[in-house]
Amino acid sequence: MNLVKNSLGREVPTEVNGQKAIPYKGIGKHQPFGKKIGPPIPSGANYSTKVLNNIDQMLDRIHLFNGMTISFHHHLRDGDYLVNLIVDKLAQRGLKDLVLAPSALFPVHEPLVNHIKNGTVSHVLGSMNGPIGKLCSAGGMKKTAVLRSHGGRYRAIQDGDLHIDAAFIAAPTADVHGNANGVLGPSACGPLGFALADSLYADQVIVVTDNLVSFPTFPWSIEGGNVDWVVSIDKLGDPEKIVSGTTKVATEPDRLKIASLAAQLVRDAGLIDEPEFSFQAGAGGMSLAFIQYIADYMREKKAIADFARGGSTKILVDMLNEGLVKYILDGQSFDLAGVESLRDNPRHIETNPFVSYNYHTKGCFAPKVKASVLGGTEIDLDFNVNVNTHSDGWLLHGIGGFQDAADAFMTIITVPLYRKSNPIVVDRVHTITAPGETIDVIVTDHGIAINPRRDDLLDRLKHSNLPFVSIEELHEKAITATGKPEKPKTKDNVIAVIEWRDGTIIDSVKELNLS
Amino acid sequence: MNLVKNSLGREVPTEVNGQKAIPYKGIGKHQPFGKKIGPPIPSGANYSTKVLNNIDQMLDRIHLFNGMTISFHHHLRDGDYLVNLIVDKLAQRGLKDLVLAPSALFPVHEPLVNHIKNGTVSHVLGSMNGPIGKLCSAGGMKKTAVLRSHGGRYRAIQDGDLHIDAAFIAAPTADVHGNANGVLGPSACGPLGFALADSLYADQVIVVTDNLVSFPTFPWSIEGGNVDWVVSIDKLGDPEKIVSGTTKVATEPDRLKIASLAAQLVRDAGLIDEPEFSFQAGAGGMSLAFIQYIADYMREKKAIADFARGGSTKILVDMLNEGLVKYILDGQSFDLAGVESLRDNPRHIETNPFVSYNYHTKGCFAPKVKASVLGGTEIDLDFNVNVNTHSDGWLLHGIGGFQDAADAFMTIITVPLYRKSNPIVVDRVHTITAPGETIDVIVTDHGIAINPRRDDLLDRLKHSNLPFVSIEELHEKAITATGKPEKPKTKDNVIAVIEWRDGTIIDSVKELNLS
Repeated sequence: MNLVKNSLGREVPTEVNGQKAIPYKGIGKHQPFGKKIGPPIPSGANYSTKVLNNIDQMLDRIHLFNGMTISFHHHLRDGDYLVNLIVDKLAQRGLKDLVLAPSALFPVHEPLVNHIKNGTVSHVLGSMNGPIGKLCSAGGMKKTAVLRSHGGRYRAIQDGDLHIDAAFIAAPTADVHGNANGVLGPSACGPLGFALADSLYADQVIVVTDNLVSFPTFPWSIEGGNVDWVVSIDKLGDPEKIVSGTTKVATEPDRLKIASLAAQLVRDAGLIDEPEFSFQAGAGGMSLAFIQYIADYMREKKAIADFARGGSTKILVDMLNEGLVKYILDGQSFDLAGVESLRDNPRHIETNPFVSYNYHTKGCFAPKVKASVLGGTEIDLDFNVNVNTHSDGWLLHGIGGFQDAADAFMTIITVPLYRKSNPIVVDRVHTITAPGETIDVIVTDHGIAINPRRDDLLDRLKHSNLPFVSIEELHEKAITATGKPEKPKTKDNVIAVIEWRDGTIIDSVKELNLS
Repeated sequence: MNLVKNSLGREVPTEVNGQKAIPYKGIGKHQPFGKKIGPPIPSGANYSTKVLNNIDQMLDRIHLFNGMTISFHHHLRDGDYLVNLIVDKLAQRGLKDLVLAPSALFPVHEPLVNHIKNGTVSHVLGSMNGPIGKLCSAGGMKKTAVLRSHGGRYRAIQDGDLHIDAAFIAAPTADVHGNANGVLGPSACGPLGFALADSLYADQVIVVTDNLVSFPTFPWSIEGGNVDWVVSIDKLGDPEKIVSGTTKVATEPDRLKIASLAAQLVRDAGLIDEPEFSFQAGAGGMSLAFIQYIADYMREKKAIADFARGGSTKILVDMLNEGLVKYILDGQSFDLAGVESLRDNPRHIETNPFVSYNYHTKGCFAPKVKASVLGGTEIDLDFNVNVNTHSDGWLLHGIGGFQDAADAFMTIITVPLYRKSNPIVVDRVHTITAPGETIDVIVTDHGIAINPRRDDLLDRLKHSNLPFVSIEELHEKAITATGKPEKPKTKDNVIAVIEWRDGTIIDSVKELNLS
C-alpha cells in the first residue's frame, strides 16, 4: 500500500481496495468533477406485484453473488434484528466475501465477527460501533474498512464511490407498493433518512417490514417507486432498544458544569439574541443538559430559534411545543417523544443526509446551524478532533454526523479534560476525524479554549467572564493530572481509512500491535 | 424525415431533431435499457450564498448560450408571468434558437409566438395549450415539437432524453437556501411537483419567488440542495388566474347526465364496495359532478376510499374532511380550498410525477387508481383517444396526465357524442394520444360502450341496467346526427410527435394544409 502525506501531515493510502483514493487537501479545497451515478432505468411493466412472504422467498428472487455489496441503515440502532438475519441467511446459502455497507453497526451485530472470520463477510464500508471495530483494529478484516460520516456516505453513494448491489431497508411501516416510514408500527424508530441514498441508487432495493399495510401509508420516507420488493417478517427489532422510553439529562456535577459553560458560551457570543439562531446537540446526558440551559437563556431573552437540529428527544420536543424553536429538523429520534412528535407535529420535520449533511450538493443545511455541540475521544493542540479511536488506539466508534455537524458557525466540543488516566486534550490525536480548521471551541471542566483561527469569535467573546485558556494550557493541565500517556503501538498496515466528507482521505487507522 | 408504421399503424419518424426515436410497440412492450442520467457533482464549497436581487443579475451569473434548453413548470397556469419575463429578457440579450421545455404553456404565453417567429425560440418540447399549438400546427416552428405526458416528461428528463440546461422554477415561497413550495405566499398554487425533475436533473437550477423567507420554509417541494440561485421578484403571476376562487360543478343537463352515468357505472361495477377503492377525476364541471355523484353512492354504501387522486378541488377536500376518502394524493390544486387543504391537512399529500405517473420507475401509483374519469376530443372504433388535436386538426392541447391516468383499473372517457357538427366518436382519431388498449369505457349522453378487451368488466356489469351499446353503434349515432365530417387536410411534414409515456412515439402530428 502506497502511503503519502495529506495536507494535515497524515499518512494515507492513494488506493483503497483497488479504488483510487485522494488525500485530504483542506476544507473546500477538493473540487469534485464528473457526474453523479445513474441507477438502471426500470420499467413499471415489471413491478405489478412486489410483496413476498418471507426472507427466503425474497433471497430466491434477487441477484446474489460472491463479493456483492449489501447495505443496511442503523435507525433501529442496538435493537436491530435485520442485519444479523440477512447475513445469517446469506451465510447459509454459502455466499462469500460480502462487502457490508451499513450506515452503522452496533454491539447487537457482534455475530458478524464470526461471519468475518469465516469469510462470509470480507470487510465493512461503514461505521462500526463496538465489537466489529475491535475485530478490525486487530487486523481481522480481509480488506480495508472505510469510515464515512452520514453526509459522506450519501456523497459516496451518489458520486459512485460506493456501489450497492442490494439494499435491505428495515421499515417500521411499509405499504404494498414499497412506500415506507419509521413513524408508525411496533418498531417505530422516527426518520428513515439514512436509507434514502440506498433506495435511490442501489441496484436492488428490498424493504423489510413488520407492519405491512395497504397503499398508501404516509409519510414516504422511502418511495415505492424506488423499491423492488417488500417483505413481511414478524419482528424487525427490539422496540426497547430501538428508541429509549426516555432520554436522561446528566446529573454528574462535572458534566453539568461543562454543559453549563457551553451554554453560557453560546449566550455570551451573542448568538441567542441574533436573528436566525439555531443549534444542534446530541442525545447524551451532557448534550441534553446543554439544551436545557440554552432553553433557560432563551426564555430569559424571549428568543426564538429558527430551528433546532435533531437527533430529537423529549427535551427538544418540549422546546418545540413551548414555541422556543420554530422547527425541529430531525435526522433520528432518540426517544418515544421524538418519534411521536415527528409523527404528529407538522413543525417536526424529517430530514435525510442529502438535505442536512451531504457536502456534494448545492449546499446542505449543516453550515446554517449557529451552535453545534459535539463530543470526542481526543482533541489536540491543532484542534483536530478524534471520535473514532480511543486513547488506546482501538477503533470503537463511527463518525456519525460529526464531520458534517462541524460545519456549523460555532462548533463546540464538550469534553472532560481527562477520563481516568487518559488526557482528552492531547498533543496529537491518534486519528483525525475532523481537522482543527472546522473546530471552534473546546469546552472542558477545566476551562474553555477558542481556536485562534476564529478572530471573530474572540471578538464576540471579549467581554465574557468565562474561564478562557489556551489549548496548550488545557493540554498542560491534562498531562499534569494524568501523566504523559503512552501512545498506542501500531503495526504498519492500514486497517481502516477515515474519509473526510468531501471524499478525500483525512487519516488512516493502523492495526494495533497487541504483542 | 424517415417515417415508419408503429404497432398502431401510425406513421412516426425514426429520428426527431437529430435524436433517435423508437416507434410505439404496445403497452409494456418497450423494455428500457441503460442508466438514468447523473447531473454534475456539485460542491457545497461553491454555494455559500445563493440570493440574487433581480432577474438581470441572475442572467449575468448563469451560463447562457444559443440553442440552450430552458424549462418551466405550469403550476401557475394561465396566471404565470415568469415564462414571458425570462424569454423577453433572453431575447433582449440576443439569444437565438432557444429550446423551450415547459411542462405546459397556456394562452397567457401568446407573446412567445413572436419569439418563435423571430428566431429567439426554435421549438417547444412540452405541452402547448392554445396559441403556441396553433402556430405549431401551421408549421411555424423551426424544429419538431415533442409532446409528453406529465409522467413522460419526468421519464424523459431522468432517462436523459430531455436535457435541460437551465430550469427556471416559479416558487410561491422560497427560503434563502432555495427550498421552495407552492402552499405559502401571495402566488400560492398548491403542489410544485411538475418542477421536481427539473430541479434534480437540470445543469442550472434557478428558483424565482415573490415570497423570499429565511431558512427554513417548509414543505420542501423543491430542495435547496438542488438549487443554484434564488431570485426575488415583485410578482410571479396573477393570483386570480393561478387558482380559481372556486371551481364549479356542471349545470348543463347533458353533462350532468354523462357524469351521472359514469358514477352509476363505477357503482354497478362493484368498485365502491370493494376494499382499496380509489378514484381520479379532473376539475372540469362534468368531473366535479361525477365526484358529487360518487360521494352520494359512497355515503349510501358507507364506503371509504383509500385515496382520491387530485387535481384537488373544494369538492374533493370536502370529501376528505367528511371522511369519505382517507387521503388526497394531489398533483395540482385547482382552487383555493385545494391549496389551503394541502397546506393544512396532513392527509392531503403533495405528489410529483415521479411517484404518481412516471412509467420508468419501480412502479408509480397510477395503476392503483380504481376508476379514472377523463375527457377527450375524439375516440375511435379501436377505443384510441385523442386529446391533442381538435376535429379540425389544430394542435391545441397538451397531453397533461392523460396517458398516465389511463393506467387505472377502469379508465372511463366521458364525452358528449358530438360537439356542434363534430362527432366525438369517430372511425379513426386524427391523433392517437392513448391507445385503445388502455381505454376501458366510453360514457356518452347517448350510451355507454365497454371495450370488448375487458371481459372482466363486461362480467362485472352484466346485471347493470345502464344503456350499454357498442362503440360502432355510438359512432353510427354520432354520424347520423352530424353527418360524415371532413377529415382535416394535412401536408406531409411532421410538426410534432406524441410520445407515449414509455418514450416511444405513438403518433405524429402533421402540418395543416390551410390553402
